[in-house]
Amino acid sequence: MTTLRSGAWSLLLLAAAVTATAAETGDNGPRSSAQRLEQRLQALGRFGANPAGGVSRVAFSEADLAGREYVMSLMREAGLEVRIDAAGNIIGRRVGTDPALPVIMTGSHIDSVPQGGNFDGDVGVIGAIEVAELLREHGIATRHPFEFVVFTDEEGGVVGSQAMAGRIGPGTLDVVSHSGLTVRDGIRTVGGDPARLADAHRAPGTLAAFVELHIEQGAVLDEAGIDIGVVEGIVGIRWWDVTVEGTANHAGTTPMNRRRDALLAASELALAVNRVASTMPGTQVATVGRIRAEPGAPNVIPGRVVMSLEIRDLAAAKMQAVFQAIETEARRIAKARGTPISFSEIDVALTPAPTDERLRTVIETAANSLGLSHRRLPSGAGHDAQDMAHVAPMAMIFVPSVGGISHAPQEYTAPQDIANGVDVLLRTLLAIDRGALGQ
Amino acid sequence: MTTLRSGAWSLLLLAAAVTATAAETGDNGPRSSAQRLEQRLQALGRFGANPAGGVSRVAFSEADLAGREYVMSLMREAGLEVRIDAAGNIIGRRVGTDPALPVIMTGSHIDSVPQGGNFDGDVGVIGAIEVAELLREHGIATRHPFEFVVFTDEEGGVVGSQAMAGRIGPGTLDVVSHSGLTVRDGIRTVGGDPARLADAHRAPGTLAAFVELHIEQGAVLDEAGIDIGVVEGIVGIRWWDVTVEGTANHAGTTPMNRRRDALLAASELALAVNRVASTMPGTQVATVGRIRAEPGAPNVIPGRVVMSLEIRDLAAAKMQAVFQAIETEARRIAKARGTPISFSEIDVALTPAPTDERLRTVIETAANSLGLSHRRLPSGAGHDAQDMAHVAPMAMIFVPSVGGISHAPQEYTAPQDIANGVDVLLRTLLAIDRGALGQ
Repeated sequence: MTTLRSGAWSLLLLAAAVTATAAETGDNGPRSSAQRLEQRLQALGRFGANPAGGVSRVAFSEADLAGREYVMSLMREAGLEVRIDAAGNIIGRRVGTDPALPVIMTGSHIDSVPQGGNFDGDVGVIGAIEVAELLREHGIATRHPFEFVVFTDEEGGVVGSQAMAGRIGPGTLDVVSHSGLTVRDGIRTVGGDPARLADAHRAPGTLAAFVELHIEQGAVLDEAGIDIGVVEGIVGIRWWDVTVEGTANHAGTTPMNRRRDALLAASELALAVNRVASTMPGTQVATVGRIRAEPGAPNVIPGRVVMSLEIRDLAAAKMQAVFQAIETEARRIAKARGTPISFSEIDVALTPAPTDERLRTVIETAANSLGLSHRRLPSGAGHDAQDMAHVAPMAMIFVPSVGGISHAPQEYTAPQDIANGVDVLLRTLLAIDRGALGQ
Repeated sequence: MTTLRSGAWSLLLLAAAVTATAAETGDNGPRSSAQRLEQRLQALGRFGANPAGGVSRVAFSEADLAGREYVMSLMREAGLEVRIDAAGNIIGRRVGTDPALPVIMTGSHIDSVPQGGNFDGDVGVIGAIEVAELLREHGIATRHPFEFVVFTDEEGGVVGSQAMAGRIGPGTLDVVSHSGLTVRDGIRTVGGDPARLADAHRAPGTLAAFVELHIEQGAVLDEAGIDIGVVEGIVGIRWWDVTVEGTANHAGTTPMNRRRDALLAASELALAVNRVASTMPGTQVATVGRIRAEPGAPNVIPGRVVMSLEIRDLAAAKMQAVFQAIETEARRIAKARGTPISFSEIDVALTPAPTDERLRTVIETAANSLGLSHRRLPSGAGHDAQDMAHVAPMAMIFVPSVGGISHAPQEYTAPQDIANGVDVLLRTLLAIDRGALGQ
């Protein structure tokens, strides 16, 4: 990472680099075509289209294969040299003028959740190809090689980006994906080679930066009328199973004052989880999404309640602080109710991934040069960028999601909002190419 | 019902009748044998015995058929004339000296829940047969005919007693019982005739009284060290499905202050249900036994919660008052949280069945004459007696359940406690025979 390390020198260069880029593109500089973006997103959306207006294009499915072919054809049209790495990631490459410089990479994914929408992932892929198209159309030569990537099976566990970061878990290849194929067979189906997965690994230092354009999947930008989200980082996620132990008993023969009803403590705790996360300063979130009372009959007092607890934040220390505050509340409630509460953590291994502070500033400067409003915000959802942060300085650009709806056919982002995001992405990548990160 | 109606005359007779009975039985009067009761309960418990020490003797099963045969043999030993009515109820009859008088009836059931215990129902059947045995052994002639009954399929919906009360629902015969047989086929299997169910109906006036001995199935008597429970009535039951409507959303991308989390209002309501039922004066109970958050994933904010609400009390007006207080709380919570709450009542058709006040006094006098402590309490569980209240003045005698455990192999009542209950039952029935109810 030494060649990429930020120092006083690179910070000094930053303002100059961005200014140079803005001057080069100017008011008449390359601008993306909202119409072309919309047309291509609609064309991609026909692969796996479902009656509700969204797509069911799960990784490794026939629809995914067809969508990948379509995207590769667009890449070739844009003059990119296309290959598929061992993890099945599609990589479209454009050479730079200085062969010694590391790659600047952008991209996202085109696989969807079952019954998903047309924008999650797709915007970052079609947007990246639009950048390649603009570079070609305007004859812009870059110093760094550029790579435009479509990651394999993002929705099934960021498989492609994990492989690229050399972080793929030992059991991942055996996981049965939404397509019905194991990830191993799926990677083979899309042209990868699961036996040589290490070949897909990019060592730190080989990439100058990774920038992902994505829809917000939340309602912050939409509700505030902001054009561009400057992502502060991708939150870490911790999960627990929380168990409240009471005494199951006949709901008819057990007087109110003789009960040890596990649901009462569970209810108090669900309220406490919300209160703790809502009142601590910061953007942390905590959620109880699942709850089950046992035995679960209307005429039996709950003897046990099991519920989920999820905490997300940009900082591991904050997640721990939220958990400790909840645990303190749980101890108080358990004691007062006489129903013990225990927490069992589920290892979901999602540590927070902060974005690069220099890149946040580059994105803000690019948005300013375009007259676009912007706001910093965390990404509450996971992304391929999360793994890429282990390989290179990483950034994410968000565009508004109408109503914050995502992972559903109703998912929508307006064409101009997408075009704005692509314009910011282009200027950000060019600023990096001009030395915004010191090389 | 006119011949049975209580009036000033019958109330005046009451004390005299009980006193006469106590004098007749005296200190040397008939007493049940705790040893014989225990031996017979153990023998009955072998039919359908399960490894956990309880019984799985569901109605119409092989075990139920074998248990019925055993009980009928005991009835014949006790000198009773045994028949099976059209509903499959076993009836052991003993003639009285005055053929014009209506029947005095006692009994319970021997079918169990799956994985049940050895005392629920069995105590009232073996206890009734012990009464018949004592009458025979001591050569006691009664004025009224006595009938000792084993009701069909109590645990599957008080089928036998409903038929006897002429209250069996139109769909009951088609219900598939725990045995796998429909109730129709089950009744046929045990020797009844489902096509002539009306023959099992006993018109009001044909029974002088119905008294059931049963274990408490709660812990009130056991914890207070009381010998005999004088049941005030069998509670009515009302059930609702309660639905809270929020907005399902991504638990990572939706800030805490933008949520409409249905589980928060549901949690507040579960606490309010308990608070309302606990703080109103009386013995009412209210329970949330089942709760489900939808979609129910740890990473999705609950968009809807459906939970059960059950209210039980001896008085219909009290049940309504409890419900109205809960509804008021729900309106307040729904408004404060912005998540509407609706109640949908499930028709379980269990109206409260108060016991006969004169019979409560007869039971208390009998307990006093035996030096046994007693307490009035509601029955929170349903019983065959509930239906028999529509045919005749009805009473129930409870004996302690250790730890209040029931419907489980750990169900237990000590032999002496059972013997106490049988002694009280015998004196109660003899008091009725002597005119405690005015005939």
